[in-house]
Amino acid sequence: MRILLINPNTSTFVTEKVAAEARRIAAPGTEIVAVTGRCGPAIVSGRAEDALAAAEAMSLAAEYGGDCDAVVLAISFDSGLRALREMLTIPVVGMSEAAMLAACTLGSRFAMVTFGNRAVPIYAEICQSYGLGGRLSNVVSLAPLSDAEMRDPLLILPRLAEAIDETVSRDGTEAAILAGAIFAGITHAVAEKVSIPVLNGVAEAVGIAEMLVRTAPRKAGSGSYQLPAAKKIEWPNPALVSHFARF
Amino acid sequence: MRILLINPNTSTFVTEKVAAEARRIAAPGTEIVAVTGRCGPAIVSGRAEDALAAAEAMSLAAEYGGDCDAVVLAISFDSGLRALREMLTIPVVGMSEAAMLAACTLGSRFAMVTFGNRAVPIYAEICQSYGLGGRLSNVVSLAPLSDAEMRDPLLILPRLAEAIDETVSRDGTEAAILAGAIFAGITHAVAEKVSIPVLNGVAEAVGIAEMLVRTAPRKAGSGSYQLPAAKKIEWPNPALVSHFARF
Amino acid sequence: MRILLINPNTSTFVTEKVAAEARRIAAPGTEIVAVTGRCGPAIVSGRAEDALAAAEAMSLAAEYGGDCDAVVLAISFDSGLRALREMLTIPVVGMSEAAMLAACTLGSRFAMVTFGNRAVPIYAEICQSYGLGGRLSNVVSLAPLSDAEMRDPLLILPRLAEAIDETVSRDGTEAAILAGAIFAGITHAVAEKVSIPVLNGVAEAVGIAEMLVRTAPRKAGSGSYQLPAAKKIEWPNPALVSHFARF
Amino acid sequence: MRILLINPNTSTFVTEKVAAEARRIAAPGTEIVAVTGRCGPAIVSGRAEDALAAAEAMSLAAEYGGDCDAVVLAISFDSGLRALREMLTIPVVGMSEAAMLAACTLGSRFAMVTFGNRAVPIYAEICQSYGLGGRLSNVVSLAPLSDAEMRDPLLILPRLAEAIDETVSRDGTEAAILAGAIFAGITHAVAEKVSIPVLNGVAEAVGIAEMLVRTAPRKAGSGSYQLPAAKKIEWPNPALVSHFARF
Amino acid sequence: MRILLINPNTSTFVTEKVAAEARRIAAPGTEIVAVTGRCGPAIVSGRAEDALAAAEAMSLAAEYGGDCDAVVLAISFDSGLRALREMLTIPVVGMSEAAMLAACTLGSRFAMVTFGNRAVPIYAEICQSYGLGGRLSNVVSLAPLSDAEMRDPLLILPRLAEAIDETVSRDGTEAAILAGAIFAGITHAVAEKVSIPVLNGVAEAVGIAEMLVRTAPRKAGSGSYQLPAAKKIEWPNPALVSHFARF
Amino acid sequence: MRILLINPNTSTFVTEKVAAEARRIAAPGTEIVAVTGRCGPAIVSGRAEDALAAAEAMSLAAEYGGDCDAVVLAISFDSGLRALREMLTIPVVGMSEAAMLAACTLGSRFAMVTFGNRAVPIYAEICQSYGLGGRLSNVVSLAPLSDAEMRDPLLILPRLAEAIDETVSRDGTEAAILAGAIFAGITHAVAEKVSIPVLNGVAEAVGIAEMLVRTAPRKAGSGSYQLPAAKKIEWPNPALVSHFARF
Repeated sequence: MRILLINPNTSTFVTEKVAAEARRIAAPGTEIVAVTGRCGPAIVSGRAEDALAAAEAMSLAAEYGGDCDAVVLAISFDSGLRALREMLTIPVVGMSEAAMLAACTLGSRFAMVTFGNRAVPIYAEICQSYGLGGRLSNVVSLAPLSDAEMRDPLLILPRLAEAIDETVSRDGTEAAILAGAIFAGITHAVAEKVSIPVLNGVAEAVGIAEMLVRTAPRKAGSGSYQLPAAKKIEWPNPALVSHFARF
Repeated sequence: MRILLINPNTSTFVTEKVAAEARRIAAPGTEIVAVTGRCGPAIVSGRAEDALAAAEAMSLAAEYGGDCDAVVLAISFDSGLRALREMLTIPVVGMSEAAMLAACTLGSRFAMVTFGNRAVPIYAEICQSYGLGGRLSNVVSLAPLSDAEMRDPLLILPRLAEAIDETVSRDGTEAAILAGAIFAGITHAVAEKVSIPVLNGVAEAVGIAEMLVRTAPRKAGSGSYQLPAAKKIEWPNPALVSHFARF
Repeated sequence: MRILLINPNTSTFVTEKVAAEARRIAAPGTEIVAVTGRCGPAIVSGRAEDALAAAEAMSLAAEYGGDCDAVVLAISFDSGLRALREMLTIPVVGMSEAAMLAACTLGSRFAMVTFGNRAVPIYAEICQSYGLGGRLSNVVSLAPLSDAEMRDPLLILPRLAEAIDETVSRDGTEAAILAGAIFAGITHAVAEKVSIPVLNGVAEAVGIAEMLVRTAPRKAGSGSYQLPAAKKIEWPNPALVSHFARF
Repeated sequence: MRILLINPNTSTFVTEKVAAEARRIAAPGTEIVAVTGRCGPAIVSGRAEDALAAAEAMSLAAEYGGDCDAVVLAISFDSGLRALREMLTIPVVGMSEAAMLAACTLGSRFAMVTFGNRAVPIYAEICQSYGLGGRLSNVVSLAPLSDAEMRDPLLILPRLAEAIDETVSRDGTEAAILAGAIFAGITHAVAEKVSIPVLNGVAEAVGIAEMLVRTAPRKAGSGSYQLPAAKKIEWPNPALVSHFARF
Repeated sequence: MRILLINPNTSTFVTEKVAAEARRIAAPGTEIVAVTGRCGPAIVSGRAEDALAAAEAMSLAAEYGGDCDAVVLAISFDSGLRALREMLTIPVVGMSEAAMLAACTLGSRFAMVTFGNRAVPIYAEICQSYGLGGRLSNVVSLAPLSDAEMRDPLLILPRLAEAIDETVSRDGTEAAILAGAIFAGITHAVAEKVSIPVLNGVAEAVGIAEMLVRTAPRKAGSGSYQLPAAKKIEWPNPALVSHFARF
Repeated sequence: MRILLINPNTSTFVTEKVAAEARRIAAPGTEIVAVTGRCGPAIVSGRAEDALAAAEAMSLAAEYGGDCDAVVLAISFDSGLRALREMLTIPVVGMSEAAMLAACTLGSRFAMVTFGNRAVPIYAEICQSYGLGGRLSNVVSLAPLSDAEMRDPLLILPRLAEAIDETVSRDGTEAAILAGAIFAGITHAVAEKVSIPVLNGVAEAVGIAEMLVRTAPRKAGSGSYQLPAAKKIEWPNPALVSHFARF
């Protein structure tokens, strides 16, 4: 089984983090093909950049998705998730989507932990758009991270643990999602410091993608996730133009 | 006052329709600057194409928004609405958003009328994402339109009226939104055939944009709609790159 | 265009405030006809008084609405909004309704700011009754106002700014509505002190009313907003009796 | 125990129906004091008339509530319910409120049955305003009733049964509320014809009012249901003026 | 009228408390038959124990329900409520259900007060499962109780009052439910210390059960609350086996 | 890895079906330990029987869970899911829960397909209790099944396909869940006949359980899913008594 791991950010250090975590959790026989965005911002931090990342994720999926069995979207806004799910015939799982679905099996309500105040309503809206707003206890936010902290988030382990402890007692939170691809790989370190399960989404997305490949549900033949009709589009990326044209 | 009317589709006949309707409704002294997408599909019909339209709307806004007082997004998926609202300092109104807000002042619950079954859940999700799911009675769908019907939707006036009559009696609908930029300009013709108010959104969006220009609320200085930090991005459109870099 | 501005309170100083704000924002050619309640309390402060204001708003609308093009209800409980919308053939917009609809175009979630704890659940219920509960971050409340503060709410500018700052950081609020007709005209002064847009509703209601007059949606011919059947009612106000009898 | 049964309609035949049903169900020792509106319409049928009935219910409560232990509002829009609950120190129960609360103990989701299409969204809004929208399966509507049918609704027993049967199979309805004071006293006749429990609300409201008198919860001393401050109001009904002045 | 009061806990001191409160509130002529669990935990404190209490409540209902007119479930998780409602032909009311329904007639939003953090999400889920999540302001929790405090909760009267005062000012709570059968009989003592109504549910459940016996709605003949088909089951309790077999 | 597959029904033919499907989908190295209820009904069909199945699932988990790595609850009411999740230290996944979570990655809204009208509101309530009510398009119901059809549900393949086709066009359904353990193993046969993905839950639950074992989230140490305190309970099943006593 080959899983295409798409990081539509242009930061390769993020791709390396998520790929390492994906490979750590993948079943024997699962190959992780990790790709990085060429267009868009280095790190997506808001609504406008999220829209660019969605388009770039589509280009990457068109270029690299051909011989893969599933896609994992390794960006915590799940940028372009629904677009990819429509345009591809293989399962697509977003990392925050996977974290939320897994969190549903672990506690009554989960919190999302992010940094900076720009992302707070965005994560709430993502959660609500998945129909899971009733399971969300809160989106809590740390101060913005420095470059060094982005690259090594264990530097802020005490702040993460404190934020989780607070939401446990104030909001009745029973599971915490570290929202951000940069947090891939540190969930167990954080979980040791707090009283509740901690997730990030990359690992869960790989597991859910493997499950979907094995259960092999049919591609939608009606509704909003059926393949688009073949269509000529104008777009700078020729792989994307071909992808739309060939159906 | 100058309002930038963005049609991120590449179909100029759609731009002409929405521009005519916008000019018909605009107050004296309001100039409508209408622009058309260069990239993306001729007509956006689903999730993937919507994501491309969002990116294209951003490029158009970066290129043409500079000397305008407000933006009206003249595409019925409101593609890129939140991205534009974040990246610009002027008010931005989506046509379907405007139709829904106006419908709230006219009836208890409104229906959206579209064509084809792909768009049905998409409009429901858009409505829910605006927090207005409780005001939505249904999304009803006609058979897909021919090219001729797309260009002259009065050809399907009887089908539109019939669909509205049905949702009035079955769903208790009290206002109908013709969801689609191609329906600009025909609401009064449809309303004459049915028992409830009929909206399309272009006209309402122009009125709401004018209201916002006159009331002049301050640009967000915190949260998810504050301007992004100045940032170097990679993107084929140089105006968009400059826009992100200059802040 | 003539807009009837109804203040169903019996306080003329409130009418003067809202009329001034309405005239400041109205388009050239829009005339504001401002009327004040004769029955009911000086200032509506709770559920029972709101019910009296609703009946008084109906009497005022019956008396003065005849040669107007739209009604703006200039009381922050929007007292009688649905009743007026049913019994009149012209558009009716409530000031808090307008503030909420406009706030939807400016931020993810908005807070309402009031004084005293009696009104807190009432505003929450109004917001939910408009289907907008998902957009409400909180209703925050200052200590009750003195008479002098009611007449000149700029006296409490620091308290308003502080309350807004708190809800921004605690609740992720992205727009603030000063709920109360007495706050008409001070939104820009408050906005200068805080990081988010500030609305009151009178200005927005005038703009939305003008939009509705220009877009001219048809009066409902079915459902709960169609005109009541002509009917003899008993009521102290003869204009209201005539209004019900003439249909 | 004395329960004030308020019919704010001006139709005494309705008062007689609801009083008979209330007396049939009341515990030994409970006296039913039934009063009828003097102002407003003969039968309330929409939003505007509902607002008049609310004000009239307040006048009736001010005049007759003084030596009673509880109020039952015997009008199916529960007109003025929250106003009365605020302005009185005794429990107040609305008939439709009571029907819905009781229905919650009898089935998963309940339907409301009314006549004419004007009331359909109104009942849905009432139910949602009580926070019970998730328990409502549908509001179903019969053709408008003739005068004779209003006075003797057993004439439409087959139509009622048919409407209930339909909502059972289509909507999964598990309890039916006959929404309308005129339906008082016929629930058992209807229930014999269908497969689910049938309620009207007058009987349930009397039982709930008795329960509240016996459990004797304290009057709110804070929030939106505390007594209004003593206040001089202008109003045609002197009892209401006195009521507001005396606190 | 005979009401079967089921405490599926094995603690007779709890049964004595709830029986005393039930008898205090019951109408003349109502007999309270109180029974205590033989299987399960002494005090139910979580999800697993709740499931055992549900099964034990079923056994008790099968053994003792035969000659009773209604059942009141005197355990604050309402353990087995829906099961009993399906398997019996008489009305069944849960104590927390009754508290919530009664609270709806007393304030805008109610809080639940419990002890320990395990029960917090459970009460929230119960409330939501009744469709009343929109009426719940918060579930607040005291520190776990000692044995002495369980037996005499007036020992913690100051802590209860403080917790209620806090939720009044922070959450806008307008009624408080003391969630726990052990709190039966102390609501008036607590209410004297706070500004809002205080409920526990046992008293309200008895009143609602009496109302349902008098209004006598028919047993469901379709849907999820109709009697199960006669069926042979394996179960340690012979009364329960007989109950299932005899239908 | 060993997964305990619990069928709390007493029907071994059901256990055989779900075990076969679980083994078909399990990763190499995963052992499926399938157990069947000894107490309770042969097939759980309603609320009361569901409560018995929950208690029986607890006994089975206490007896057989000791040397397993995860539990899959192979009964479509997910009977006892939350109880097991609290009392065990290993992951627990319900089959309908898993079907719904997986369906969220495949379509906008999913329908559940069952037989008989008793289960319709039960499945809706289960879905809502998982916070997923907004993703549910409908619960549709076939006529009750014969014994032969229960054992070989491919006999009703045309009826299943027809019911799914109807909900696709009427409700906009984009994924279908065959709710019932008896449907294990037939999803691909059904999917071939319809236009949307079809799930049952056993396969998905195995995949999600494997994911949870591999990602190894910590057991809750606070809140409603922490282990119950060690406690002496009375219960016919000694393994369950020991389980509660040993903590």
